[in-house]
Amino acid sequence: MIGNSSPAVPDLPPSPPPPDDVRMRGFTRRVTVDDALLWVAAHARPLDSTSVSLDLADGRVLAADVCSTVDVPGFRRAMMDGYAIVAEDSQGAAPYNRLPLVIQGEVLPGQQFTGRVERGSAVRIMTGAPLPDGADAVLPAEMVEEDGQRILAHGSVPPMKHVGQVGEDVVRGTTILPAGRRLRPQDLGVLSSIGVGQVEVVRRPRVRIVVTGNELLPPGTAPRGCQITDANSPMLVALAARDGADVIHPGIIGDEPEEILAGMRGAAELIVVSGGSSVGREDHAPRLLAEHGQLAIHGIAMRPSSPAGMGLLDDRLVFLLPGNPVSCLCAYDFFAGPAIRTLGGRAAEWPYPSRSIPLARKLVSVIGRVDYARVTIEGDQAIPLAIGGASVLSSTTRADGFVVIAADSEGFPPGTHVDVQLYDRP
Amino acid sequence: MIGNSSPAVPDLPPSPPPPDDVRMRGFTRRVTVDDALLWVAAHARPLDSTSVSLDLADGRVLAADVCSTVDVPGFRRAMMDGYAIVAEDSQGAAPYNRLPLVIQGEVLPGQQFTGRVERGSAVRIMTGAPLPDGADAVLPAEMVEEDGQRILAHGSVPPMKHVGQVGEDVVRGTTILPAGRRLRPQDLGVLSSIGVGQVEVVRRPRVRIVVTGNELLPPGTAPRGCQITDANSPMLVALAARDGADVIHPGIIGDEPEEILAGMRGAAELIVVSGGSSVGREDHAPRLLAEHGQLAIHGIAMRPSSPAGMGLLDDRLVFLLPGNPVSCLCAYDFFAGPAIRTLGGRAAEWPYPSRSIPLARKLVSVIGRVDYARVTIEGDQAIPLAIGGASVLSSTTRADGFVVIAADSEGFPPGTHVDVQLYDRP
Repeated sequence: MIGNSSPAVPDLPPSPPPPDDVRMRGFTRRVTVDDALLWVAAHARPLDSTSVSLDLADGRVLAADVCSTVDVPGFRRAMMDGYAIVAEDSQGAAPYNRLPLVIQGEVLPGQQFTGRVERGSAVRIMTGAPLPDGADAVLPAEMVEEDGQRILAHGSVPPMKHVGQVGEDVVRGTTILPAGRRLRPQDLGVLSSIGVGQVEVVRRPRVRIVVTGNELLPPGTAPRGCQITDANSPMLVALAARDGADVIHPGIIGDEPEEILAGMRGAAELIVVSGGSSVGREDHAPRLLAEHGQLAIHGIAMRPSSPAGMGLLDDRLVFLLPGNPVSCLCAYDFFAGPAIRTLGGRAAEWPYPSRSIPLARKLVSVIGRVDYARVTIEGDQAIPLAIGGASVLSSTTRADGFVVIAADSEGFPPGTHVDVQLYDRP
Repeated sequence: MIGNSSPAVPDLPPSPPPPDDVRMRGFTRRVTVDDALLWVAAHARPLDSTSVSLDLADGRVLAADVCSTVDVPGFRRAMMDGYAIVAEDSQGAAPYNRLPLVIQGEVLPGQQFTGRVERGSAVRIMTGAPLPDGADAVLPAEMVEEDGQRILAHGSVPPMKHVGQVGEDVVRGTTILPAGRRLRPQDLGVLSSIGVGQVEVVRRPRVRIVVTGNELLPPGTAPRGCQITDANSPMLVALAARDGADVIHPGIIGDEPEEILAGMRGAAELIVVSGGSSVGREDHAPRLLAEHGQLAIHGIAMRPSSPAGMGLLDDRLVFLLPGNPVSCLCAYDFFAGPAIRTLGGRAAEWPYPSRSIPLARKLVSVIGRVDYARVTIEGDQAIPLAIGGASVLSSTTRADGFVVIAADSEGFPPGTHVDVQLYDRP
């Protein structure tokens, strides 16, 4: 679980802007993953609400309780095809004692029978049709032989048998769905059944993707020479959309401070900057954030993604993700993802299904650092991937998921049950 | 698991069209759920492919293997910020033995250093930049003190340290993603990194929703009198969209055979008919399917949803779902959902995450019938919902998921671990 810690703001060291003449240096101190998550929890809050029609509401998050103003059904109705009768008229009916009832007419769903069911008579009725006055049960078609103007009942029913009562599904005045509910297909059905056509939902966060790097070619271009094709844009756009964002991605930005700053100031509630997040000379984003906003965290005790950072610019949450694609994915999933989901009213927790499975081999980590270890699943065992550095994105496509190794753990021996977060969607 | 049985077609009884004068009667024989799933598996096949751009490819299913025509990276590159050097020049460097190297220049990502790194010299290099000729390692910035025109190394690196090799991420000629893969965000990243901007994916099935019933008011209308507001349309549209369909839903259709037949003949690969699926007088859909196509299955040994059916009309798969909303949801999830997912190249299996948890109370079923039992989860126990009939849709919004009770089971005593399919999305 991430992001569900208490929202107390951690006592972070002040983060002075780097000196004007930025020299290359390592991070002097790294913030813990837990402190970074506390910062996210303290600064990400659900947005205001907006009204959407039911056909666009699947997966959205209710901004307020929904209370029904009607009973469903609003009338007593047949729950089977058969005959509306006075139940007492069927008492004693059996295959060897078939009781006749005169057919008075029929009633279909959506119609109201105008007459009244008297003793000794029956009205043919279809599932969903309102029970005629006078009747108190439905005799199923299977218990009857129809014989022209009358039926012969060869089975009996007690009063109210096969009759749906007023409010059986929804009682007027009850809360049928609570604020915070992420709407499911059947929720839309229930909402529709009570006459709701528009629902108030938490607004989607606008997330602006700022991908920087002079070495990057746009997606759809073959890599050439010492340039590489941008892998992070398509990945980040898909990740943010998965997490419920309205994604804005104007294209690759060069390593020019003015362009990066303009990108970080675009209309959005949350900015994801990929690349230029570290402490090198071309890593402008942290300095820009420190100068023009607040660089709350820079450098995190984790692997990969240690150069990640986060802060505030005006009222925007800004996440600085390393350009190396595995680091980018990992830092997105640890920090930006929970923030985006929280803004949109969703749970901050991992969006992946998880499974507890034993390790086939040992998984080694280092005390003081959180590890994001990719694993494959073979049979019923998790196999750690022997992987290179944070640049080997294909390790995350070969992997079936990942294991988070906490900062206070040196890893696990073979056979340990670990929680694998599964990349695959159910 | 459903839908992954062997695709042998079951030996189904022939299904004669009902007599012209359809009288109300029960089903004379019900097909088993397993046989119905075999029919689905035998008749649903993945569609042909279409080309989509990467930004629309998340969650789509690859129609063919993707093989890389390039190495990624295509050049040796720095994996850290630091200095490109001849590794041997750093041997013996230590805090008490700082070795000087002359700075020859610098190289940034996307640039090519024009000179050559000679013994005794260094080129400042940023992560991702190509390693200059002559250099064979990167000395991290942390191991160096920069001193104007030279650096003082106080740490050493072996050859190839912090150097990413050609093809380290992706080797030219290898299959990076197989046909059938449901694309993940990081897959889009890897595809982009090899220069792929368009991918061949399985076409989305066009699914036409035919909702019938004279008693139905359109969504957004308050229920009144003996009419009810259509709950199934918004639910089915969301379900089919979840399962990857392009959904076509022209609105509610009256209980007129011509309209229903025209609806079933609309452009689509799969038709979902809701309502009028049983054997009552107004249940036109089964008769229409039998007369104009093939009514392969009608009446299934399950609860709810026993009036469900399926068949073929021209080359369309047609699923007849009961109008009662819980039955509609259940029959969709058992039969139409797997078919839609299969047409779109996805796995037929339940699309829900599942958990094995103990039952808090007994769960009773009947031999010979599959049950779809809604449960809530409290603490770590599954509590069967005491529910009314198939019309109580709110039971599926109160439920956290459902348990399928197989036809050969009478149910489970308290404490039994059962697999709960969870409605919630991770």
